[in-house]
Amino acid sequence: MATMNISSLTARRAAIGVDVGGTKIAAAVVDASGRLTHRVQRATDVSGVDATLASIRAAIEAVLADAGPTAGDVGGVGLGIPGKVDPVSGVGLLSVNLGWRDAPVVATLEAALGLPCRIENDVSVGALGEARYGAGRDRQSLVYLSLGTGVAARVVIDGRLYRGAGGMAGEIGHLVSDPDSLLCKCGARGCLEAIASGPGIAARAQQAVDARTPTALRDMAAGGPVTTRMVFAAADAGDEVAQTIVERTGQYLGGAVKTLIMLYDPEIVVLGGGLAQAGNRLTAAIIREVDRLAAESYVFRDLWRPDRLAVSVLGPDVALLGAAALAL
Amino acid sequence: MATMNISSLTARRAAIGVDVGGTKIAAAVVDASGRLTHRVQRATDVSGVDATLASIRAAIEAVLADAGPTAGDVGGVGLGIPGKVDPVSGVGLLSVNLGWRDAPVVATLEAALGLPCRIENDVSVGALGEARYGAGRDRQSLVYLSLGTGVAARVVIDGRLYRGAGGMAGEIGHLVSDPDSLLCKCGARGCLEAIASGPGIAARAQQAVDARTPTALRDMAAGGPVTTRMVFAAADAGDEVAQTIVERTGQYLGGAVKTLIMLYDPEIVVLGGGLAQAGNRLTAAIIREVDRLAAESYVFRDLWRPDRLAVSVLGPDVALLGAAALAL
Repeated sequence: MATMNISSLTARRAAIGVDVGGTKIAAAVVDASGRLTHRVQRATDVSGVDATLASIRAAIEAVLADAGPTAGDVGGVGLGIPGKVDPVSGVGLLSVNLGWRDAPVVATLEAALGLPCRIENDVSVGALGEARYGAGRDRQSLVYLSLGTGVAARVVIDGRLYRGAGGMAGEIGHLVSDPDSLLCKCGARGCLEAIASGPGIAARAQQAVDARTPTALRDMAAGGPVTTRMVFAAADAGDEVAQTIVERTGQYLGGAVKTLIMLYDPEIVVLGGGLAQAGNRLTAAIIREVDRLAAESYVFRDLWRPDRLAVSVLGPDVALLGAAALAL
Repeated sequence: MATMNISSLTARRAAIGVDVGGTKIAAAVVDASGRLTHRVQRATDVSGVDATLASIRAAIEAVLADAGPTAGDVGGVGLGIPGKVDPVSGVGLLSVNLGWRDAPVVATLEAALGLPCRIENDVSVGALGEARYGAGRDRQSLVYLSLGTGVAARVVIDGRLYRGAGGMAGEIGHLVSDPDSLLCKCGARGCLEAIASGPGIAARAQQAVDARTPTALRDMAAGGPVTTRMVFAAADAGDEVAQTIVERTGQYLGGAVKTLIMLYDPEIVVLGGGLAQAGNRLTAAIIREVDRLAAESYVFRDLWRPDRLAVSVLGPDVALLGAAALAL
């Protein structure tokens, strides 16, 4: 009976989580137990800061309308924003995907919606989501490694994000992973993000095609650019060049997992983002490399246990849930 | 007048800091403002766990006797212990230098001394010392990179040590820095500790001598083993081989500083340990490499400022002060 009471009380508290991306905005009502009760998706208008903020507001208003009477339970809004944000001032400092600088996200939305709003970096909300509702639920510390268009990690300790002095802690994507490989947009050569992100995988496959290496990717691309999706499809179909590219990506990322474990000694590392959802081939290659590194070094072996690496259990919803967690 | 009162009250609280090494034990009385008032040094008896604990106890009793009436101000003892320790149970879990496993340090000393005792890993107490009394005094977060027989980092956030799940957070010494270089004792090839520690520098110099590369180190060693000290002396005297070894060491360690900054985003990185005290040549080479890496990558440049890297200001006293801080 007491349990019933508590859960009905808990259910009355809810928040809106917003996942702001460069092409689309997802918004959802999330209750305190991490259940998504309503959800909408809208295109992102990136024609200017005001237009982008208006499309974020429209998505939130749409999900509130959708929620109907449940909207009364909503106590706040949390937003995951790509790029650099200042969660204290509520300003989106710099986002290449949204094309903005110093966007007054919180001030604008709070004035329009009359609800308290909080923002964080999109990878950070992924880490919070997985820590609170996903693979880190029963763990005191978690590292979330986001593998997608970018590669970055975020750390949650005792339920709180470890931000570092400037909110950039976890920028593993710009450690040099292979100094003989591709140039990174940041200026260095062989950064993890340049070679093991989605675009990095496609670029390395493109190199192989351009070098006229015999591979099915050539016909698949049919003169157009090679995509990450093609690489995984060709690898699954038995193409050796594509398989080698995926295997090598697993080695780069397995090395990154070792770095994260040695430096943060977390209870769990969770792989998230589009590449972690792209099928078993890449995650299996990552695990193979981590196992190899553990077999090779007794110091790393001492820190490593198979239950310390997991694939995101929340999948694409992780950012919505983590964003809502900011406001819950 | 109020200030006088406060400082005389503060002065009445003191602790003993103990720096336990494989060859010698240093103990000192430290007051709350971080002043060392009395200090002793004893040889470490490593003939067995009981003998080692007895020599630690003897050092503490000697400094208490030395302190005379001031001993009444001492409220506790903090100890920095090499290797893996459990600060909660007070057990020295594993120390290669002391040759012990599961040593009941705190239980034994508390029973003998009647004073509360606390232990931590020796690099951790260095980090605490520098955070509380040294280069990190006015900073919210600090990474201490210890460069000596081993290479390891420890992180202090808001005055507290970030230990990770198993107390091993910061083990950067076993990240692979140069996969083509020397084999590490851990089993992997080219670990930072294997090539950029004191013994690592000596081993790389020995390789050059053994390969009959023309260098003054050959005569200096006179058929015996090349030492780290010889490498720095030869470099200062203009020997190009020795200079290249030091420069390359700076590159390895500069890369490690970048890794620490990207992953922890700390307000400051402090270089400590014997190599950081070994003169300007190595620290200058480290700074040169960090500057080069910042010039190369705008993402790193965004996180990097020259005031974010410093050499330990406490020098060899850092462990004594940090150990005392455990008990203050």
